[in-house]
Amino acid sequence: MNKEQLLNAFNFRHACKEFDVNRLIPEEDFEFILETARLSPSSFGFEPWHFLVVQDKNLREQLRSKAWGVTKKLDTASHIVIGLTMKSPLMRWDAEYIQYFMREIQKLPEEVVKGKGKFFETFQKSDFDLTDDRKLFDWAAKQNYIALGNMMTAAALIGIDSCPMEGFEQKETEAILRNSFGIDTDKFGVSYMVAFGYRVMEPKAKTRRPLNQMVTWK
Amino acid sequence: MNKEQLLNAFNFRHACKEFDVNRLIPEEDFEFILETARLSPSSFGFEPWHFLVVQDKNLREQLRSKAWGVTKKLDTASHIVIGLTMKSPLMRWDAEYIQYFMREIQKLPEEVVKGKGKFFETFQKSDFDLTDDRKLFDWAAKQNYIALGNMMTAAALIGIDSCPMEGFEQKETEAILRNSFGIDTDKFGVSYMVAFGYRVMEPKAKTRRPLNQMVTWK
Repeated sequence: MNKEQLLNAFNFRHACKEFDVNRLIPEEDFEFILETARLSPSSFGFEPWHFLVVQDKNLREQLRSKAWGVTKKLDTASHIVIGLTMKSPLMRWDAEYIQYFMREIQKLPEEVVKGKGKFFETFQKSDFDLTDDRKLFDWAAKQNYIALGNMMTAAALIGIDSCPMEGFEQKETEAILRNSFGIDTDKFGVSYMVAFGYRVMEPKAKTRRPLNQMVTWK
Repeated sequence: MNKEQLLNAFNFRHACKEFDVNRLIPEEDFEFILETARLSPSSFGFEPWHFLVVQDKNLREQLRSKAWGVTKKLDTASHIVIGLTMKSPLMRWDAEYIQYFMREIQKLPEEVVKGKGKFFETFQKSDFDLTDDRKLFDWAAKQNYIALGNMMTAAALIGIDSCPMEGFEQKETEAILRNSFGIDTDKFGVSYMVAFGYRVMEPKAKTRRPLNQMVTWK
């Protein structure tokens, strides 16, 4: 792998405001993007995410009505992903789901399940302080942003544009997802949306602080 | 770019527990990794991060004493990055830094500065609710995890291993960084550490839920 190729992808990526309505992402390319989310790392490996792909026009229209930073992207994107994050009934150290996950997904032997479970409890009660629902949700959401970043990088590497979005009414959006997808919003909250497609306009030049303003060595 | 190459990198990446102490990452490879953090997207483009590279043995030893999930990685990694996240004195909608950043880094025209500033205020007061220091810090930290994910992906693409870490005493670690790096911990908090280097052992097989358990279409 050529470093230049990856840096080109990072420079290609921008928050794409409007997509070409005549171009759909091929199925195998979109599955590749989702696969990089699936293989993303997360704290303790607990994968505290679920992804909704919203293709239904009527549903997009409903979501649009609760969005204030999102509208044109929702109208024109080839694919829209909503990143849901697991809430405390699934993510608290004593949640049944954590036990299930360690045994059935991570296939850990019984003594490791015990040790790792204890470690997870210690972590949540440490001075990271994940002791209320909001703090725990935000911690789990951080992991979800790793998946978000990887999806956007993967897309850029194959010439697909994206736009991440936080500009929507959270509670009303969750109400829509409860009705349309049957999401249990006691267990899952919405963290972000991300649109994928193909640009119609060239972006303006990327701005960033130079490396020496954001890195300190010792 | 070949999709296979990127998926291979995702499968290569794992939470590397111990690194080869005899192998240092070449300077240009490490700079490439940092460059992918630098070019990472963030909400409103505000880049709410700063990265410390910890190479000093004595300093690593001090950090090790406050870590409980980190010790072997701190001893053996070629490079260690600490991801700092900006706190509310820099990230609140009315912070001077935000005004400075929009004008001097993002080079936005005056009327856009005004509109975007208002939008940022609306967002913080929306039902995402970023109205206290902790909530705002966690929101900014989510952006930092995008950079974290990109650094690990970039490393894997060029055959470099990594391990992300949250298992350390946050306040005591911040005290060390205040003394050693002169970090103003009223403005920056520590979000994660990530070690880079070369594996000494092959990892056990990766576990993940299958795609159909983490994606729902409509």
